[in-house]
Amino acid sequence: MNRWVPGFTGSTLDRADLVRTNPEQLAALTGSLSARLLVLDGIDPVLDQDGLMVWKSLAEADPSSELIFLGFDDGKPRFAEVRPDLPRGASRSPAIFRMLDIMPPGEAGTYAAARSLIDWHLRHGFCAQCGTRTEMFRGGWGRKCGQCKAEHFPRVDPVVIMLAEHDGKVLIGRQPAYPPRRYSALAGFLEPGESLEEAVARELHEEAGLRASNVRYVVSQPWPFPSSLMMACIADADRDELTIDYTELEDAIWVTREEVQASLDGDPDAPFLPPPPYAIAHTLFRRWLEGGG
Amino acid sequence: MNRWVPGFTGSTLDRADLVRTNPEQLAALTGSLSARLLVLDGIDPVLDQDGLMVWKSLAEADPSSELIFLGFDDGKPRFAEVRPDLPRGASRSPAIFRMLDIMPPGEAGTYAAARSLIDWHLRHGFCAQCGTRTEMFRGGWGRKCGQCKAEHFPRVDPVVIMLAEHDGKVLIGRQPAYPPRRYSALAGFLEPGESLEEAVARELHEEAGLRASNVRYVVSQPWPFPSSLMMACIADADRDELTIDYTELEDAIWVTREEVQASLDGDPDAPFLPPPPYAIAHTLFRRWLEGGG
Ligand SMILES: [Zn+2]
Ligand SMILES: [Zn+2]
Repeated sequence: MNRWVPGFTGSTLDRADLVRTNPEQLAALTGSLSARLLVLDGIDPVLDQDGLMVWKSLAEADPSSELIFLGFDDGKPRFAEVRPDLPRGASRSPAIFRMLDIMPPGEAGTYAAARSLIDWHLRHGFCAQCGTRTEMFRGGWGRKCGQCKAEHFPRVDPVVIMLAEHDGKVLIGRQPAYPPRRYSALAGFLEPGESLEEAVARELHEEAGLRASNVRYVVSQPWPFPSSLMMACIADADRDELTIDYTELEDAIWVTREEVQASLDGDPDAPFLPPPPYAIAHTLFRRWLEGGG
Repeated sequence: MNRWVPGFTGSTLDRADLVRTNPEQLAALTGSLSARLLVLDGIDPVLDQDGLMVWKSLAEADPSSELIFLGFDDGKPRFAEVRPDLPRGASRSPAIFRMLDIMPPGEAGTYAAARSLIDWHLRHGFCAQCGTRTEMFRGGWGRKCGQCKAEHFPRVDPVVIMLAEHDGKVLIGRQPAYPPRRYSALAGFLEPGESLEEAVARELHEEAGLRASNVRYVVSQPWPFPSSLMMACIADADRDELTIDYTELEDAIWVTREEVQASLDGDPDAPFLPPPPYAIAHTLFRRWLEGGG
């Protein structure tokens, strides 16, 4: 088994899916004295000194909030609230990324579920099929339209993130919004009608002009900004000449194993700054160095 | 490389993503004499004697239709139309599954993109954020709200489908809606806040009471009913005693390599009928027999 745990994985939450469809059980849990409510600052968590999230009694929920049943953890039912005063469309505050630096991956995984769900409810209060206001159902794992009866479920958007490999080097790229000297693996949303392997080949062609083959899946993680499933792959590239799509990337370069290692080791002479440890691109670099994929 | 091509993969469509965001280029293609429009019967394709889809001139589009730019194939711009008279919510007609039996996988892949997009437009004509009617943009690869300015993109719903392995046998299950004697791999939607590996473990626990580890990704395919990304995996199960969730499954059994082989070979004495060749569960059985995963 691999040692490097991807960020946002390893949550100890038991999602108890059968409870969601049982209104009597849900009502009993909502009234339970042991029920806990996630404490949030906007949509960001509040952490204790161990990097763990702070919870409070469910009785402290805002009476105008909609409640999401997250599942059980440590024997206690866990809830999150969708407060009507939260802004629609979560912004990524710099604070959340500083918190992710100290949150254990499993803790971040529980947070990822809560954040993605809250954000989805905030941006999906109306029926996409008929325009009517919808209501939460299934303990917060869906919304239902009273008008046309359509059921809507939270989105998970698959994203491919990949290293093209050629002559022992891998391709890394830089988006204009990155911090100075940061490079990462190339990435893009998977589209309707394509497989994971086809999405990897298409993205490498669109962004760098490469033809890719032999796509190997490596590892995945949820990424709650707002609701992606990141799937990391390695693929063989047919050449090292690049045709960079400058609408997506500011730069792309080939790097050796030694250069990636130096970058992860924090060597000031390394050619780039790597993504943070909770990002799957970091895991992907580690796995590539270990010989994975 | 593996020989068994998953259904719906290998499309020769060039999605030409940069064209989507270029209104002048899109307009020029829409007016081009070489532009082709997918012929549909409802939301089903119309096939020629080789199992290939029939196309017509774009000039024959219904003037009240919205047009989706699918990309280029064989040098020609390809479009599909969202006709306002199509029923919302595509039904899976028995006809489409008979057609998939004869369509080459790449042809089915192009169809998958068109079908998933058309179905998404039919069921997402209103803004989920504010309830206002939306308009197509990006050549049909999104919808935009004129009221709140939200941009909406087609859904792709990741699904895990897996074989639990124990003592050289794998677990297969039967849903009540299956044809007689059909069994397949267990499957379920991936949820917000979990990785692919975690979704596999959760589904095997929910549906069969197993604890799974060592999850190995095998292969993927798009599944346009309406818009899934099927990701096939194999995992080690801790035991062979089952606790079946009868709200999901009618039955689940462990089968040997010989039994799976006999089933795929069409042996009348095999213990089950396998999924059709275009379903990824079929590919997963083939790959497992080849020693993959
Ligand atoms: Zn509705
Ligand atoms: Zn809107």
